[in-house]
Amino acid sequence: MTRPFVFINAAMSADGKISTVERKQTRISGTEDIDRVDSLKAGSDAIMVGIGTILADNPSLTVKSESRREKRDKVGKDANPIRIVVDSTARTPVDAEILNKGEGKRIIAVSQRAILEDIDLLSKKADILVCGTEKVDLKELLHILWLRGLRRVMVEGGATLNWSLISEQLVDEIYTYIGNMILGGERAPTLVDGEGFKLGGETTGGIVKLELLRMVKLDAGLLLQWRVQGSQGSGFTVPG
Amino acid sequence: MTRPFVFINAAMSADGKISTVERKQTRISGTEDIDRVDSLKAGSDAIMVGIGTILADNPSLTVKSESRREKRDKVGKDANPIRIVVDSTARTPVDAEILNKGEGKRIIAVSQRAILEDIDLLSKKADILVCGTEKVDLKELLHILWLRGLRRVMVEGGATLNWSLISEQLVDEIYTYIGNMILGGERAPTLVDGEGFKLGGETTGGIVKLELLRMVKLDAGLLLQWRVQGSQGSGFTVPG
Repeated sequence: MTRPFVFINAAMSADGKISTVERKQTRISGTEDIDRVDSLKAGSDAIMVGIGTILADNPSLTVKSESRREKRDKVGKDANPIRIVVDSTARTPVDAEILNKGEGKRIIAVSQRAILEDIDLLSKKADILVCGTEKVDLKELLHILWLRGLRRVMVEGGATLNWSLISEQLVDEIYTYIGNMILGGERAPTLVDGEGFKLGGETTGGIVKLELLRMVKLDAGLLLQWRVQGSQGSGFTVPG
Repeated sequence: MTRPFVFINAAMSADGKISTVERKQTRISGTEDIDRVDSLKAGSDAIMVGIGTILADNPSLTVKSESRREKRDKVGKDANPIRIVVDSTARTPVDAEILNKGEGKRIIAVSQRAILEDIDLLSKKADILVCGTEKVDLKELLHILWLRGLRRVMVEGGATLNWSLISEQLVDEIYTYIGNMILGGERAPTLVDGEGFKLGGETTGGIVKLELLRMVKLDAGLLLQWRVQGSQGSGFTVPG
């Protein structure tokens, strides 16, 4: 099934953690990186995020720079890319920042397990897409997004959505900002959590291999851009 | 207390994992990196490792290159650096590779919880150092190593020993090789596990900050060299 170009963007500590064991976000990058992320956002058709991240961090995922919002406006786009929550059981709070802050469309992708009452409530603030029985069928979701004309989807985590997308081979590139700190913690969320690949071979597809496209110092850390080997996103490739 | 210069060396996946969820080692780096690690080993006075790594991987931690072993020999050193296991309850198997493969001294650091019978058995193959009541007192251990003339200690993991050393501010530099793969897994061991730093501030000392000394492409991944900010190792600093 044809799908948009999908890339993950995440900041992690030097030991691969995206937040502390308390799941509290701490500033991992600096101003240069924050600007880079804003630019990536403004250049995307949609920003996708998992329900875990909404509940833990309550991000708005808006484009911060006014000039970037204006630039989008001039070419007939909404100020913000479409914001998408992957939320199998429709747990997104109606007062979540993502549903209330900034202009632009929202999509909440739910599975057939979601309760109609919740869907009704959320449908006042977002388009609801039902795809998948037990959990959101990401392949189907991305195909629907493609059919709606979306060509470039940015994934802002968290660790569980990253795992689902990567293990289903639905990711084309991964940007990781590596911050100059150790967060530690057996239970701290990492860039990619979930079940994990096994050498035993139970997880179909096996370990995902990457190609290093770019490596550059940024703020007090560094930025890596990886291409997923064998990826098949049908959007345009990411410039520099 | 004066201590040697201590550095951690580890290979991790692009998502910060040092092995799969099954705790099975998979080749993360390539031949260039393996040679780099061998060179670091040959240039160290001791190689330190946690008991978890011994039980999971059974490494010998010998210097692989014959010319490097000969070079050590020529300056009056043993072919291999002293190999040290941090093993609070003396669980190192008597037939472990580290105790049997290659020339050179071994030290097993235990706490007062270790059973005399186990200590007796292991003392045929290694020097036993008792330091700490419940678990090995790493500060004391490193001070003893300093008093024995060791100036440069390489730590080869695993995730728990790395956490103990880092959280007690006993590490000066961290080398991380980042491989071109995603391993994933909420339960996969990462570069630094343990309790983890909390923003709540229960963990004394707070989040450890690093300074990026070096960043270089190596094999299909990259090598980072970090200095721990405020570290106080008394050995020489690491050349390039």
